[in-house]
Amino acid sequence: MDRSAVATALSALLKGVRYRAPSTSGRVMDLPGHYAGLVRIGRETLALTTDGVGSKLLLALEMDRWEEVGEDVVAVNVNDLSAVGARPAALLDYVACRAPESAIFAAIGRGLDRGLRKARCSLLGGETAVVPDLVQALDLSGAALGFFPGRRRPVTGRDIHPGDLVVGLPSSGFHANGYTLVRRLLETHGVGLAERITGERAPLGRLLLTPTRIYTAAVEAVVESGMAVGLAHISGGGVRNLVRLNPRVEFCLDSLPPPQGVFQWVSALSELPPSELYQTFNMGIGFVLVVRPRFETSVLDLLARTGEPRARIIGQIRKGQGVRLPHEGVRYTSY
Amino acid sequence: MDRSAVATALSALLKGVRYRAPSTSGRVMDLPGHYAGLVRIGRETLALTTDGVGSKLLLALEMDRWEEVGEDVVAVNVNDLSAVGARPAALLDYVACRAPESAIFAAIGRGLDRGLRKARCSLLGGETAVVPDLVQALDLSGAALGFFPGRRRPVTGRDIHPGDLVVGLPSSGFHANGYTLVRRLLETHGVGLAERITGERAPLGRLLLTPTRIYTAAVEAVVESGMAVGLAHISGGGVRNLVRLNPRVEFCLDSLPPPQGVFQWVSALSELPPSELYQTFNMGIGFVLVVRPRFETSVLDLLARTGEPRARIIGQIRKGQGVRLPHEGVRYTSY
Repeated sequence: MDRSAVATALSALLKGVRYRAPSTSGRVMDLPGHYAGLVRIGRETLALTTDGVGSKLLLALEMDRWEEVGEDVVAVNVNDLSAVGARPAALLDYVACRAPESAIFAAIGRGLDRGLRKARCSLLGGETAVVPDLVQALDLSGAALGFFPGRRRPVTGRDIHPGDLVVGLPSSGFHANGYTLVRRLLETHGVGLAERITGERAPLGRLLLTPTRIYTAAVEAVVESGMAVGLAHISGGGVRNLVRLNPRVEFCLDSLPPPQGVFQWVSALSELPPSELYQTFNMGIGFVLVVRPRFETSVLDLLARTGEPRARIIGQIRKGQGVRLPHEGVRYTSY
Repeated sequence: MDRSAVATALSALLKGVRYRAPSTSGRVMDLPGHYAGLVRIGRETLALTTDGVGSKLLLALEMDRWEEVGEDVVAVNVNDLSAVGARPAALLDYVACRAPESAIFAAIGRGLDRGLRKARCSLLGGETAVVPDLVQALDLSGAALGFFPGRRRPVTGRDIHPGDLVVGLPSSGFHANGYTLVRRLLETHGVGLAERITGERAPLGRLLLTPTRIYTAAVEAVVESGMAVGLAHISGGGVRNLVRLNPRVEFCLDSLPPPQGVFQWVSALSELPPSELYQTFNMGIGFVLVVRPRFETSVLDLLARTGEPRARIIGQIRKGQGVRLPHEGVRYTSY
């Protein structure tokens, strides 16, 4: 996907939307470029986000396996809520399809259920559009509502300071990003989904379909503890996403884990330079937390107890701007 | 669209979703089969809904006009919020496209703006998915969040009694329903979008693209006044939608306006019986309110002052079940 073409089209759309509702319709809180929109209604601050599974769906189609993408649609939305420190409350699903096939819908339902359990989130509704002339197979997206229980406040990244530590949580694979490139690679190099790659037992197709990891439990624990000053879901755009948190510091990622499994495979097959790889794929880190250095031990302990024993320090905050990967010779200054 | 095939697939999906989150994640309120899901967070009750523009988008594509469907995506969602008595607060848009074309996105943005103004609702976010192998042209959907200001409570239809009056608000055309059939008719009968139909000045294509009417202002006024005991957005399924409000009374629609304009045209061209027409199209009534008979004059006065001077009594509630159109010889007993 050409990121700049999307950005241009999106800014054309947003240029047209000039209206801001009066406060009697809820108070929108400015959080430009962030993962979720915030609106204040009565005494509650609510977070809303929408995201879809994208071209990973074409792999689901090819393998006729739909449970994984059902879980993905929960994951991509609730992880965006976690990235502002909100607790997921409710999900809506949207399915646009050529024809409503019950077997596919049942599998998607089972996948939604798995995701909702992990995120402790309820399905509050959905829409099924049968539009055979519009979609080629099936498009699956969703929207999610989150909130800030008790006295919790949104975590925006504004309070990130030089000296803070960057904690990385492992991803479960490509999550739901980079699949346009992955599919092109499979085709160009004639690689089949039944093949096996170095260091992995499962066939490639199954690895590629692995659902996006859901970070709700671990992030909820850290946010409740008050230790997080920054949170990022490493989705489309890879570690460039960190720039969204705070443009006035440098995220120096000098302790990234070496790419393994599908990341090693995609690196070798694509022959892309690190600057491309790290802005297309999560490269093994699916969620990032920023904490004060004094919390190093306690945050890693807490993460280990809440399902993230492989959380690790991947870098630190320095004076400067953007995201720097010193060992890879990569620097991003914008999202 | 085959409504029963969709219902079967949807129930297969929902069968898989067994999980209900604990109340620490918000309390889901049961409102089965209704227009929006409700969840209680802190002291606020929130309404969430999702809907798309559907196959009307293919007309937008053919005419290369996108502002109208931009307004539609607001309308279909906020009207569903109005149908539970919620005030719209925030909208999210979701665009899935083959390529991000700025001119199209700009037009959609202008349409969103028009809709948001009418609904007094803010755009809180969105997602653009570029998925050339998934969608043929462009799919546009959205999700919306509403709330219940002050002491307002959801209007569910449970308190509808025999003797209550059914008030109809005029639609602006087909809104966003029935377009699969309309497109088939155009093709079968070789009717062009530039043709003119009886009683209308604008060419057919423009009539067909007319955005869905937004009822927010009028419905907000009636709900605030406390006069509404039932509300219905006449969308997919036509007047069958009324069954969703209350299955223990009969909605006797004995004063429906005679079909005019595009409704007269589709009736003549399709040669469909009324039972089909009234469950495929809104047939001129886009939103329904149910009120006690003593409010007849005051509710029509209030509607006239809030943008709905053509509101009219279209029937009354009787003992029985389902929806009956005595003059058309039509009876629906389920949604």
